[in-house]
Amino acid sequence: MTVYNRIAAQDLGRIAALSDGIFAFAMTVLVLEIHIPESADIHSEAQLWAGLAALAPRIVTWLLSLMTLGIFWVGQQTHLNHVAHADRDLTWLNYLFLTFVTALPFSTRLLAEFIGYETAFIVYWFNILLCGLSILACVIYAERAGLIKADAPAHFSQAYRRRVIVAQALYALGAALGLISIPLGIGFIVLVQLNYAIAPRLPVLFKL
Amino acid sequence: MTVYNRIAAQDLGRIAALSDGIFAFAMTVLVLEIHIPESADIHSEAQLWAGLAALAPRIVTWLLSLMTLGIFWVGQQTHLNHVAHADRDLTWLNYLFLTFVTALPFSTRLLAEFIGYETAFIVYWFNILLCGLSILACVIYAERAGLIKADAPAHFSQAYRRRVIVAQALYALGAALGLISIPLGIGFIVLVQLNYAIAPRLPVLFKL
Amino acid sequence: MTVYNRIAAQDLGRIAALSDGIFAFAMTVLVLEIHIPESADIHSEAQLWAGLAALAPRIVTWLLSLMTLGIFWVGQQTHLNHVAHADRDLTWLNYLFLTFVTALPFSTRLLAEFIGYETAFIVYWFNILLCGLSILACVIYAERAGLIKADAPAHFSQAYRRRVIVAQALYALGAALGLISIPLGIGFIVLVQLNYAIAPRLPVLFKL
Amino acid sequence: MTVYNRIAAQDLGRIAALSDGIFAFAMTVLVLEIHIPESADIHSEAQLWAGLAALAPRIVTWLLSLMTLGIFWVGQQTHLNHVAHADRDLTWLNYLFLTFVTALPFSTRLLAEFIGYETAFIVYWFNILLCGLSILACVIYAERAGLIKADAPAHFSQAYRRRVIVAQALYALGAALGLISIPLGIGFIVLVQLNYAIAPRLPVLFKL
Repeated sequence: MTVYNRIAAQDLGRIAALSDGIFAFAMTVLVLEIHIPESADIHSEAQLWAGLAALAPRIVTWLLSLMTLGIFWVGQQTHLNHVAHADRDLTWLNYLFLTFVTALPFSTRLLAEFIGYETAFIVYWFNILLCGLSILACVIYAERAGLIKADAPAHFSQAYRRRVIVAQALYALGAALGLISIPLGIGFIVLVQLNYAIAPRLPVLFKL
Repeated sequence: MTVYNRIAAQDLGRIAALSDGIFAFAMTVLVLEIHIPESADIHSEAQLWAGLAALAPRIVTWLLSLMTLGIFWVGQQTHLNHVAHADRDLTWLNYLFLTFVTALPFSTRLLAEFIGYETAFIVYWFNILLCGLSILACVIYAERAGLIKADAPAHFSQAYRRRVIVAQALYALGAALGLISIPLGIGFIVLVQLNYAIAPRLPVLFKL
Repeated sequence: MTVYNRIAAQDLGRIAALSDGIFAFAMTVLVLEIHIPESADIHSEAQLWAGLAALAPRIVTWLLSLMTLGIFWVGQQTHLNHVAHADRDLTWLNYLFLTFVTALPFSTRLLAEFIGYETAFIVYWFNILLCGLSILACVIYAERAGLIKADAPAHFSQAYRRRVIVAQALYALGAALGLISIPLGIGFIVLVQLNYAIAPRLPVLFKL
Repeated sequence: MTVYNRIAAQDLGRIAALSDGIFAFAMTVLVLEIHIPESADIHSEAQLWAGLAALAPRIVTWLLSLMTLGIFWVGQQTHLNHVAHADRDLTWLNYLFLTFVTALPFSTRLLAEFIGYETAFIVYWFNILLCGLSILACVIYAERAGLIKADAPAHFSQAYRRRVIVAQALYALGAALGLISIPLGIGFIVLVQLNYAIAPRLPVLFKL
């Protein structure tokens, strides 16, 4: 059992390292999608400012995805920090979560390019949903397989699960609002994310 | 000898960190290969759905390569977790393994672009074969050079070698099937991979 | 409290790992922006040398951004090295800092492409300003939240804050000079950066 | 002094993590430079094989750069493994080394695109020279600043310096041969690299 624990602990480090690489890469790729104005079209300072202002939809979707990435990066950390050691199945569940994270630059590009299309918005929301469901699967599996640290706060997994479910319910509401009006849906999701990123302590409802 | 071990242990960490960076990068690059539909061609929600549906071959090869990467990422971890310390030769053998991993986005792109061509399929399979042979070389070298941890399970290297050889035999069978029908070959390889990724405990034959 | 500290300590490692991934990626992306000459235009060694010489503006902005990245990479390390453990807010502040770092390849590309434009230079300077302000927020927050290591040098945070503010004042002076002459502004900023990178001990004024 | 050492030790970890990210990224970028054949030009298996065979110059330069990266990755590890702790200057010297490493994909692309041009070959060799000189500066500085581990093998720095100087002399010989015939120069450099990568123990001359 000692051998196993030591090996598994290293596995946790590998999951964390792979995750940090993927999040770092995804964050940087998001910026690469924002193309600078074509120099052939620019002949004055005013045109350059106008060219930059025309990047607004890209910048909105960039900020949106940055917050999505940040929320899931912090969320996965919190999950892994309460796990004593990994096993093969937890590793694969985290790998599944990471594949959905790697898909986010694709969904973001789609949303930025087709900002007026319901289809693009639904794909984007679906990507968030898959990230949420897969991290939920990680947390539930870790609890059932007895991988949680002995000294983790009581009801940790329960609180974590409730947090994910409330967040995903709010995102689903945002998706439903998006079927009425896409800017409304995006705006709602941004507000939900700002709540999780900036003011995690204010609303008791969302508190971990 | 104490000095050497301490240095070598750090080397193991460097191998793991380089590997995680490469796998993280390869996973994200695979998604970058899936290009969103051209906005000039899209004028309705239905066209956008159709444009996304047309990405199916890219998505199939993406999932295929994600599983390939996952299997080798988990496999290399298991190898490194049983190694007490690295030496220069083990470091270079792992580096060789990683170069074949970095080639996978190339093979995937080739397969996605030329999905109907035997040549592309054979190149893809050959890439998997090189990954398998090089990780096998790492495991065999580690054992012969006496680098395995003293408390590793008995017959660990033997079981690992058998696992790699069985897997590669199945991949080779998939490649042979691909010479009859490429979808059949891809389908068979996907099934073999799903077995390793999702249900590693069910078939006694493939159990480590 | 022990549990919390252990979890928070792991969080520090995750912040560091995400940061190193982002800096590594940004450094490499900067080089990818330097395109080799078009082979269709090159028919002799002399033309190839000329084609390489024509890359000069790209190489100047590359070196400028390499120094910017290096200064902030070293600066953030120094910050994190004096923090005993992270909390959720410090993690998000560091994430904010990193988002401004990921924007640097964009600003660099803009500056290289529009090297004669005030707009591009101001955007570049503004990016440096945002990096500086966000790392300042990290340092101030860490001090107020009592996250500084007990054995950190006395007045560490005060010295760090003064260093950032002096540097940003010099960058702002460079930006003002850029409104008179862009090469003058860039040259001044390069000198300030060389001072921080190469000769950090010489000028007492900038000493930490 | 305890505080300082603890901080500096973390710095060593940050240098290693940044390095692994950069090497991982550079290795993967090298493969991205190998473009698959254009599907519009391919109508048969034979044409696809021919298209792949036409990638030969890219594959040669890819293998060349993979070995270059591997040699410097192993070399820098060996350097860092013998350092007890970093300081600001060693960090910046390693950063300088890493900037030359990030330039390697550029030099490789140039060499692959202009394989018949002396200019491209000299730029490539110059990049290797800069990597060698900067890692030499790291090793010399670490020794003079008293940063070497107390239990490092005697004459470690001296042996390391001799190894770098012999290798760079051989690379310079390869560059000189390249002025006579570029394939001869490349071939000679490949042989030198194979010696360092594959058979480090055979020639007593190059032994560390």
